[in-house]
Amino acid sequence: MKDRALRAIAECQRIAAMTEEPGRITRRFLTPPTHNVHAHLRARMEALGMEVYLDAAGNLRGLLHPEGASDKRLILGSHIDTVPDGGAFDGVLGVMLAIECVDLVRQNGLPLAVEVIAFSEEEGVRFGVPFLGSRAVAGRFDPALLALKDAEGVTLEGAIRAYGLDPTLIAGSAVDDDTLGFVEIHIEQGPVLEAENLKVAAVTGIVGQTRLTLEFAGQANHAGTTPMNLRRDALAGAAEWIAAVEKLAKRTEGLVATVGKIEASPNATNVVAGIALLTLDARHPHDAVRLGSVNELIEMANSIAERRSLAMQCTRPMDQPAVSMDERLTAYLADAIEAAGFPPKRMHSGAGHDAMVMASRMPTAMLFLRSPGGISHNPAEAVRTEDVEAALEVMSVFLQRVAGAVR
Amino acid sequence: MKDRALRAIAECQRIAAMTEEPGRITRRFLTPPTHNVHAHLRARMEALGMEVYLDAAGNLRGLLHPEGASDKRLILGSHIDTVPDGGAFDGVLGVMLAIECVDLVRQNGLPLAVEVIAFSEEEGVRFGVPFLGSRAVAGRFDPALLALKDAEGVTLEGAIRAYGLDPTLIAGSAVDDDTLGFVEIHIEQGPVLEAENLKVAAVTGIVGQTRLTLEFAGQANHAGTTPMNLRRDALAGAAEWIAAVEKLAKRTEGLVATVGKIEASPNATNVVAGIALLTLDARHPHDAVRLGSVNELIEMANSIAERRSLAMQCTRPMDQPAVSMDERLTAYLADAIEAAGFPPKRMHSGAGHDAMVMASRMPTAMLFLRSPGGISHNPAEAVRTEDVEAALEVMSVFLQRVAGAVR
Repeated sequence: MKDRALRAIAECQRIAAMTEEPGRITRRFLTPPTHNVHAHLRARMEALGMEVYLDAAGNLRGLLHPEGASDKRLILGSHIDTVPDGGAFDGVLGVMLAIECVDLVRQNGLPLAVEVIAFSEEEGVRFGVPFLGSRAVAGRFDPALLALKDAEGVTLEGAIRAYGLDPTLIAGSAVDDDTLGFVEIHIEQGPVLEAENLKVAAVTGIVGQTRLTLEFAGQANHAGTTPMNLRRDALAGAAEWIAAVEKLAKRTEGLVATVGKIEASPNATNVVAGIALLTLDARHPHDAVRLGSVNELIEMANSIAERRSLAMQCTRPMDQPAVSMDERLTAYLADAIEAAGFPPKRMHSGAGHDAMVMASRMPTAMLFLRSPGGISHNPAEAVRTEDVEAALEVMSVFLQRVAGAVR
Repeated sequence: MKDRALRAIAECQRIAAMTEEPGRITRRFLTPPTHNVHAHLRARMEALGMEVYLDAAGNLRGLLHPEGASDKRLILGSHIDTVPDGGAFDGVLGVMLAIECVDLVRQNGLPLAVEVIAFSEEEGVRFGVPFLGSRAVAGRFDPALLALKDAEGVTLEGAIRAYGLDPTLIAGSAVDDDTLGFVEIHIEQGPVLEAENLKVAAVTGIVGQTRLTLEFAGQANHAGTTPMNLRRDALAGAAEWIAAVEKLAKRTEGLVATVGKIEASPNATNVVAGIALLTLDARHPHDAVRLGSVNELIEMANSIAERRSLAMQCTRPMDQPAVSMDERLTAYLADAIEAAGFPPKRMHSGAGHDAMVMASRMPTAMLFLRSPGGISHNPAEAVRTEDVEAALEVMSVFLQRVAGAVR
């Protein structure tokens, strides 16, 4: 398995060189370097005896159908687009390990049909909307999205046509019912496995997410002539709320709540702030906990505003429910982790993934690999060979068990 | 006195129309509308029998020397420049009331020489350095300032020459020793007198001021995948410090401490902030209290940083000592307030004024008038006629007593 792991890592590094910006890894949806990635992956898949085609949404899809296998296929995959100046492993490692899984199925003579999908778009960088590839595969692609424009004014429809594909055929990219389910292998992109000294984990679900934008409005005043008791300081109110957000999140198991953005006005050293704008990003694997916490935080903001004679306004640009992974498939994965000799760690994902969209269509599971330093969306993103090896050992057991179960 | 008060207010409104920007009151140092202001004030002063000249720093100066009066003169005045989009009364009202004082001296036949100075520059808007006019009068003008450039690249020296003045003669603008002292009448620019329902106050001194710039540096991280206990959130640290600043200021009599400016990085909704930059503006009439409080706040910032595993850096771009008004002259003023029938309120000024500079050269006092709503540096800046009338009644008593004392 070590050779496979080293090969998967080397392949990720080779793909990393296929970039829009020399010296940085930037590969947005269907930009020119995607042709090179597709050609490379197609050759590798065809060499394994797979039937390969590019669907109308730009997803590269390969099918291995071993003799004697049922038509019911397992889908494996992840995405090949990146954020600007990203890392070599986010998404791409999941595709490379899916291809290694196909090779394991062949080598072990498993009677299991496997489809590998290299999703065309997950990050949402080029058109501002994520998961374009998996939406198409899951039959959740809204044709209205084709009117989206990128920064250069190119529509999504135009980008797809320019790549040589026919956007009117996207509906036909949706999977049929001959599927066992979908499994995505992905780096954690967080520090949890490293902190617990674990190599891999089965993902139980993807957190729901609420975003708020808050405005505290008081009175801009002279910092020298306005005594403390006569101030209506919007920034002091905002600071009190930031502390409340952190405190609530720390005492609520599984909740992450972040104020990452703040803007004060007039934002001058010698003027009491009249307005403070800030954002909240709150996530939890259980919707009820997230929604309850957000409500509590809004109430706190109101009570801070009232006590300080500030006006408070709040908008809610995102309220996205949590998505659970399939219990049965996740249990298979956790059992495989244990059978491969590792602690059967289960954890939720704090970030969105193609698996979130695929779960709306079929049983879905995810396997996380440790992220050194918790670093992702960054050129310093890395994986450890031993962790990739562990993931392959887990998948080897998993594929055998799935093949046995489906027979 | 009511007619005098109405005239002074009307005169301020007339000067307000002499602006760089039609519809807004903006009159920076020696910009073209200053010619109109000078011509108007010169005519008014000459009509009162004053000898008028423009000094080399652009201060318009008029001397009334009644027959039989000592050569020792009392100086009255304030500034005629404004902030951009400022109000009609900041500075200008003090000049108009100085002129009314001259008329009172004449009307009452007081044997008191009075010099009125319309300072050319106080706000520091055009060249980034305040008090250019009073520095020259106080003999504190550093010739190195002549190399300062405005936003258009014009030097201070060039601006003075373009106005028709000779900057090499600025040293000669300094007052001689034939002065009794300086009294500035100014709007409070804060909410204290209004909150206490008072018309006027004697100023005891001008606060000292320290400015700090702080940087908290942690680790930018994914807001979804980074659990609360593994974060090094620079903005949460900054918020904790903002709360500490407010708390200390509220429990320290006379201290105002403001965090008016904040910048987070990367300042994104879904990223834990890696860096937070913020400023402190701390002011107190006693230097020891201000310096002790600032030290305590720096210690708190260090301890917050240590507990949160953040790095903290602090710079100190300003450390300006408090300036006391002259005790004897201030006592005269407070006595005059009481004799005129008002509570003899004493208060410090939280903002800088020409009086701060003049105090380095001669006995100096200040009279504050109530600012409705505490509003200044704003087109909504106002004064009440009854308060202007009260100031004139106070000054009438004050001038009689000074004339009596100097005789």
